[in-house]
Amino acid sequence: MNGNLHVTRIRPMGKAATSLTVTGGRITAYGEPAPAGFESIDGRNAVLIPGLVEAHTHLDKTLLGMGWYRNEVGPRLIDKIENERAEKKRLRIDPARQSARQAILSVSKGTTAIRSHVDVDTEAGVAGVEGVLRTSEIYRDIVDIEIVAFPQSGMLIRPGTVELMEEALRLGAHVVGGLDPSAIDRDPKGHLDVVFGLAERFGVPVDIHLHEPAELGAFSMELIIERTRALGMQGEVTISHAFCLGMADQDYVANLIDALAEAKVHILTTAPAGRPAPPVKRLMEAGVVIAAGSDGVRDTWGPYGNADMLERAVLVGLRNNFRRDDEVALALETCTTGGARLMGLKDYGLAPGCKADFVLLDGETLAEAIVSRAPRQLVVKGGNVVARDGHTCSKAP
Amino acid sequence: MNGNLHVTRIRPMGKAATSLTVTGGRITAYGEPAPAGFESIDGRNAVLIPGLVEAHTHLDKTLLGMGWYRNEVGPRLIDKIENERAEKKRLRIDPARQSARQAILSVSKGTTAIRSHVDVDTEAGVAGVEGVLRTSEIYRDIVDIEIVAFPQSGMLIRPGTVELMEEALRLGAHVVGGLDPSAIDRDPKGHLDVVFGLAERFGVPVDIHLHEPAELGAFSMELIIERTRALGMQGEVTISHAFCLGMADQDYVANLIDALAEAKVHILTTAPAGRPAPPVKRLMEAGVVIAAGSDGVRDTWGPYGNADMLERAVLVGLRNNFRRDDEVALALETCTTGGARLMGLKDYGLAPGCKADFVLLDGETLAEAIVSRAPRQLVVKGGNVVARDGHTCSKAP
Ligand SMILES: [Zn+2]
Ligand SMILES: [Zn+2]
Repeated sequence: MNGNLHVTRIRPMGKAATSLTVTGGRITAYGEPAPAGFESIDGRNAVLIPGLVEAHTHLDKTLLGMGWYRNEVGPRLIDKIENERAEKKRLRIDPARQSARQAILSVSKGTTAIRSHVDVDTEAGVAGVEGVLRTSEIYRDIVDIEIVAFPQSGMLIRPGTVELMEEALRLGAHVVGGLDPSAIDRDPKGHLDVVFGLAERFGVPVDIHLHEPAELGAFSMELIIERTRALGMQGEVTISHAFCLGMADQDYVANLIDALAEAKVHILTTAPAGRPAPPVKRLMEAGVVIAAGSDGVRDTWGPYGNADMLERAVLVGLRNNFRRDDEVALALETCTTGGARLMGLKDYGLAPGCKADFVLLDGETLAEAIVSRAPRQLVVKGGNVVARDGHTCSKAP
Repeated sequence: MNGNLHVTRIRPMGKAATSLTVTGGRITAYGEPAPAGFESIDGRNAVLIPGLVEAHTHLDKTLLGMGWYRNEVGPRLIDKIENERAEKKRLRIDPARQSARQAILSVSKGTTAIRSHVDVDTEAGVAGVEGVLRTSEIYRDIVDIEIVAFPQSGMLIRPGTVELMEEALRLGAHVVGGLDPSAIDRDPKGHLDVVFGLAERFGVPVDIHLHEPAELGAFSMELIIERTRALGMQGEVTISHAFCLGMADQDYVANLIDALAEAKVHILTTAPAGRPAPPVKRLMEAGVVIAAGSDGVRDTWGPYGNADMLERAVLVGLRNNFRRDDEVALALETCTTGGARLMGLKDYGLAPGCKADFVLLDGETLAEAIVSRAPRQLVVKGGNVVARDGHTCSKAP
């Protein structure tokens, strides 16, 4: 674990084969021989991509390793929220242990950075944030974890929550979260004033879950953009899900996209197949940062999440009807550079000087490597090998 | 290969563990000891499901094994059709070889029956049908293949195509296909009169690709339903894709669903994430047979298809926002019993007396076995093992 490494026969983004030198945890050269004393690994002609970025998940409440959860939950958002708060107690979901399990699964799939929303509520308090902070410390050498203090059960409607959000930020949560200012908290102005107030006081970015549909969500989006501008927080604000950008009124969507671009507000999507969703290519063309995430992985919300950001790229591609190779590459960008920009990761990428966080993928071309989603040949974090052939070198608790 | 087999420690549909006896290619008993001389296999506590049914694909034009196809095709349906006709010649896509490759891939993933649309056009003639017929003969012991004569390039707009459709049916194609009566053939009455005329003359079922959107597609659907009734073809007609059932006008959709149910017209979906799609649960509740398919697998149309019908079940679940375990089971039904009913497969299922076509899946519960999509432990066709641990026992050409 010294961050020095040499990898032969790799094809950066599927282009011509070369070798790669890593010195002190950073990419220092391509096409040079192995320096004396460096471990050398045969890349077996793999496609080289930068580390995958999981820009939206919930590490604290995955049920990985806890036996199959039989989901019998009602259809509304509030059913899922209330069911989860009850099940958390009943199942004794340990945020430290569970976040470690998912983090290790993510690393096995090539993820080198994670933004995790973590529940803050009047029943569990800030135990989730404490647990995930512990995981982020223990596994800091294999994955970067950023924590969003997330009022999953609502904030203004549950007195005491704002104080817990403050406590979470004092403990070290990196980002202030929010949730459906109208649909859940019933007070869009009040909700957003608190969220942005906390952001200002603690000097942290904002990331708001916005499931609100169509014109209602668009109104909330406008309020978020107004506050971003007023506080000079351009580049520091993310709207997650943003289903309203998939609404029917195309003129309204075009205006919203222009406003997002101007205020440098980022968008996060899971590329949901069953919901209206942000149009990835249009957002990119407008210059809006658009990233992707798994959202919940094997939790009480749904069974499909598996923390595989290559599978997420495929889902982004399917959702956006991306068929051409250049479009498949765009889908991957939501899971790499898009996520890195959303999280503000420094020195991210494959250029010399960048941190040596990268993945080797089997595949004839970049597009094939993405769609075939074979077990990851090699995952490197800070110049050290952290996973091989689909298995993380660290053991899950 | 005598169709006698005994499998211990299997859990039918995830229920209590038992053993299974197969005699002469049929399921004959549960919970009985192995008859003398029968091969006995340890099911390792796997979930037992009936063979997966791929109810809509295009075996003749997959590019599997031919190197990665760089997709640079234009966005319109007609761009894809014309590009493909040109590429077929340039790449010399051999329908017999290619269909064998995909069939073997399908079997490795637990598929025991396939309905394949096969191109019939004035450039390739009926070579596709001849090739896939050859594959269906060669591999008849490992998978059932049904062929739809499919006028991919249009029928009335390309003189000579109708005669080729007749030839395809004389050669042994099992079903008459059709394609967007208005949007492609520009003559809905003319197109459907020919399709149903061929069905009547040859005594075969109908399966029509209908991509037409919203009210236009709904009009075509009405014409199809009228002809189904008039010819007494209830239960013999399928509409593939049927994007129009995902249109906004919910009253119109409700009336269409009622009419489909009454005329026993089946629906096939790929559960497209980027298009309006048939509502699976509502169709099931109305009694309409709804099945799923991969559509193209690694062809000039798009890169994502991989012939995995468990993955298709996941996509059906995601598209329809199925989260509960009972809903995930419904998603699987589109890939098992739904497909079997659409294809009219006889003696399909897990009951004693049924043909011994089944799959063993890893997983704690049925839902987990579906969503985790692990390599298939065992695939049995007609009482004989045809794939193990994700690999088909037959070699691909
Ligand atoms: Zn979330
Ligand atoms: Zn098709």
